Amino acid sequence: MAGDNDTALAQQGQAFQLKTPKGTRDWAGRDLLLRDHIFQTISAVFQRNGEIPLDTPVFELRDVLAGKYGEDSRLIYDLDDQGGERCSLRYDLTVPNVKHIKRYQIAKVYRRDQPAISRGRLREFYQCDFDIAGVYDPMVPDVEALRVIVEVFRALGMEITIKLNHRKILDGVFEAAGVPEDKIRLVSSAVDKLDKIAWADVKKEMVDEKGIAGEVADRIGEYVRLSGGIRDTIKVLRSDLGLCANAKVKAGLDDMDLLVSYLDAMDIVDTVSFDLSLARGLDYYSGLIYEMIPTTTSANQRGKSSQIQVGSIAAGGRYGGLVGMYGKHPIPCVGISFGVDRIFTLLDARRNKSPSELTHEVHVYIMSAGGKDGLLLERMAVARQLWDAGIRAEYTAKVKPKLQQQFNAFTGPLSIILGPDELAAGQVRLKVRAGDKEPRAQVQSKNSGGKEEVVEKDRGQLVSRDDLVEEVKRQLAALTLEQD
Amino acid sequence: MAGDNDTALAQQGQAFQLKTPKGTRDWAGRDLLLRDHIFQTISAVFQRNGEIPLDTPVFELRDVLAGKYGEDSRLIYDLDDQGGERCSLRYDLTVPNVKHIKRYQIAKVYRRDQPAISRGRLREFYQCDFDIAGVYDPMVPDVEALRVIVEVFRALGMEITIKLNHRKILDGVFEAAGVPEDKIRLVSSAVDKLDKIAWADVKKEMVDEKGIAGEVADRIGEYVRLSGGIRDTIKVLRSDLGLCANAKVKAGLDDMDLLVSYLDAMDIVDTVSFDLSLARGLDYYSGLIYEMIPTTTSANQRGKSSQIQVGSIAAGGRYGGLVGMYGKHPIPCVGISFGVDRIFTLLDARRNKSPSELTHEVHVYIMSAGGKDGLLLERMAVARQLWDAGIRAEYTAKVKPKLQQQFNAFTGPLSIILGPDELAAGQVRLKVRAGDKEPRAQVQSKNSGGKEEVVEKDRGQLVSRDDLVEEVKRQLAALTLEQD
Repeated sequence: MAGDNDTALAQQGQAFQLKTPKGTRDWAGRDLLLRDHIFQTISAVFQRNGEIPLDTPVFELRDVLAGKYGEDSRLIYDLDDQGGERCSLRYDLTVPNVKHIKRYQIAKVYRRDQPAISRGRLREFYQCDFDIAGVYDPMVPDVEALRVIVEVFRALGMEITIKLNHRKILDGVFEAAGVPEDKIRLVSSAVDKLDKIAWADVKKEMVDEKGIAGEVADRIGEYVRLSGGIRDTIKVLRSDLGLCANAKVKAGLDDMDLLVSYLDAMDIVDTVSFDLSLARGLDYYSGLIYEMIPTTTSANQRGKSSQIQVGSIAAGGRYGGLVGMYGKHPIPCVGISFGVDRIFTLLDARRNKSPSELTHEVHVYIMSAGGKDGLLLERMAVARQLWDAGIRAEYTAKVKPKLQQQFNAFTGPLSIILGPDELAAGQVRLKVRAGDKEPRAQVQSKNSGGKEEVVEKDRGQLVSRDDLVEEVKRQLAALTLEQD
Repeated sequence: MAGDNDTALAQQGQAFQLKTPKGTRDWAGRDLLLRDHIFQTISAVFQRNGEIPLDTPVFELRDVLAGKYGEDSRLIYDLDDQGGERCSLRYDLTVPNVKHIKRYQIAKVYRRDQPAISRGRLREFYQCDFDIAGVYDPMVPDVEALRVIVEVFRALGMEITIKLNHRKILDGVFEAAGVPEDKIRLVSSAVDKLDKIAWADVKKEMVDEKGIAGEVADRIGEYVRLSGGIRDTIKVLRSDLGLCANAKVKAGLDDMDLLVSYLDAMDIVDTVSFDLSLARGLDYYSGLIYEMIPTTTSANQRGKSSQIQVGSIAAGGRYGGLVGMYGKHPIPCVGISFGVDRIFTLLDARRNKSPSELTHEVHVYIMSAGGKDGLLLERMAVARQLWDAGIRAEYTAKVKPKLQQQFNAFTGPLSIILGPDELAAGQVRLKVRAGDKEPRAQVQSKNSGGKEEVVEKDRGQLVSRDDLVEEVKRQLAALTLEQD
């Protein structure tokens, strides 16, 4: 039953924008389908790798949140004091404080920040995190996390490069270059800008703003501009005996050797680029750190438009101590966040260029043409037949719908047209819509003498009722093949 | 990578119960898997029938909620006044106020009610609603809703009966029996108790508490105890010429005749029972009303335990005027709510009786036995091979795990055991766990002279590495076949 769903959605968007609170949005129709597709794809990969899903209440005891976010605490939404416990809305997704866990969570979080809808900054938005917590052998959870990331983007049909670095190597490089202990974090945050600004500007920031000596900055520059295949880059660093005398660099490189053998076993070594400029802003990382950058997407391969620049679409690394914040012992942890908004933006752009599964809510539209009645029972019976076969189908909920009405409601790739003559011969007509660019109404109706007349160029193929399900499935499969 | 996920989950349950706000709970592991399975199954059916998914913000402008829930407004959670708009948490799922829409929403709602965890009453819980709003031809949206309901429960593997009645017929029966206009709602709510208490008690309530004359109650009793197949029951009512003189009864029976022809076209007429005692408490229904009752479930067919009594697991009907509350015109609507908590309870009980897909987070556990090293790279390579084939697999994240450790972590139905001799011959051992009742450790380790020795009765089958994926898939398919 189609009705005017498209119009409804348009109205809906409007009506909702008027009534949702500032910085929040409704999700409906095709946006929600794509969002759910992303979430379900990610979940399926996580579960295949033994990650445990987790869902927590949307509000938490305020005591648990208090003191956790520093000055950002002003962005926390509090519930009103209506008696009982004091609670606040979830500010981010928290790793449960247990000894060993692989868990993931995809859920909304809440921040009373200034919203900027055009830039996608909302007060209610999704986060998607997964974590492997526990004391395990070196690099084993880390490589599993990397493998999961690769599988997620493969499942989403997105190509990525993993930019990877090791906190110990970076800190060792800074030490070896002569950066004073208390300035390592300052230097680190300057280096982290190398993907956006040139080395000369980064150096300027170090020297002018952070008080690093010019020659120290130059020595840093030699290393942090290194990047490339992980094996080659390890070799370059190992050949620098002065650098390798630094205990942190040595420990980091030993980790990297181990990692390479594991990446090989996981068959993902070519996805990784060892990039010494990657520093990740946050202080709490202690081992491997990485960012996932989209490379060519299928949209770019085929479309003429330039790639949407979204930066990293996932990031994470190893840290220790954070999980155990409320427990007795800090628990080492590998944690990754997926940038689900950015992933949505990229996949939405790709979808807009080529019609796909997620473009059409309904695949088959069943209509009646000719005859004195509207063939409602027959439309119902055909719909039922298709539903039983798992096919998405609809018809207009009118006893005698006008043909024009039915064509206007028709948005899917296939239509089945019932007529009394064809039905008498045990047949229906099946029409394939050529593409999204084709006008929706494929029929011109002339009102000659009050009676609706149909002008159709393509009357579609005649299909026997008995073969209908099979033929619809074949056509849908063919459309999908054409699309991918 | 398995670790101690089971222990973790146990700890987790405990840790979380300590820290979630009163009346809320965490969802994790197998409960969440089942919950998501239910939601995804329902969503897939809705989408197949052209329903548009909808997701709204968890908090709403307080003005929109105000005055909507009468004295229940005290149960609404308000957000604290931190400047800006006044907001409250979503109290229930609201149908968007548009002219035509088929929408569904599965989301959490919030009520500051007294929680009763043991009876499943929480302050944060899920609702699952779908609605068809708009002016359509009589009974067409109604029959589509009924068909969707049947398809949902079929997809969940649950058998149901639809108890159905028509508000107009019920009101007409009360009129014809001589109930004064102003007492119709009172009588109606008494009749609605007929599925729980005997007619004698219902009559007593009418006469003693609601001031209905005894002979009026007796006349009501003649009709409201009627129930059975929809065709037969229509026939019985049609044969009562006195009753059919009532305009409401006549209009309702005409609707029912139309409905029967549509139910036939949809092939669901046998699922429906016309039950004149069904009254549904709420005043706002104006046409068809129905409740879905679980009949035999597969758990009952196979298990010895008695059926869990949960009452109706979905309910709904036609109403008008509610949707348009904030618009200009009331919009007629068919609305159905699924009792997702009750559905969860039934499916969880069934799952506990027979191991199934949703019992095990991971299907295959890869371990090493014998040899000097722990064969980590080989375990990784096998895991990667299985993941690539879409199989859920794990291994212990230790370089040299103890065999006992690995068996303790093993919860899935299949294990793959790597040994140096087998690997040298291009083979692995594949073991099927006999059933959930079997002790988890299938191995006794004797510590003779500090070295771990394995006592295994069943050493599993030898499988070539090349055939491994195929054989695992075959075994998993066989297990599923045995389970269903």
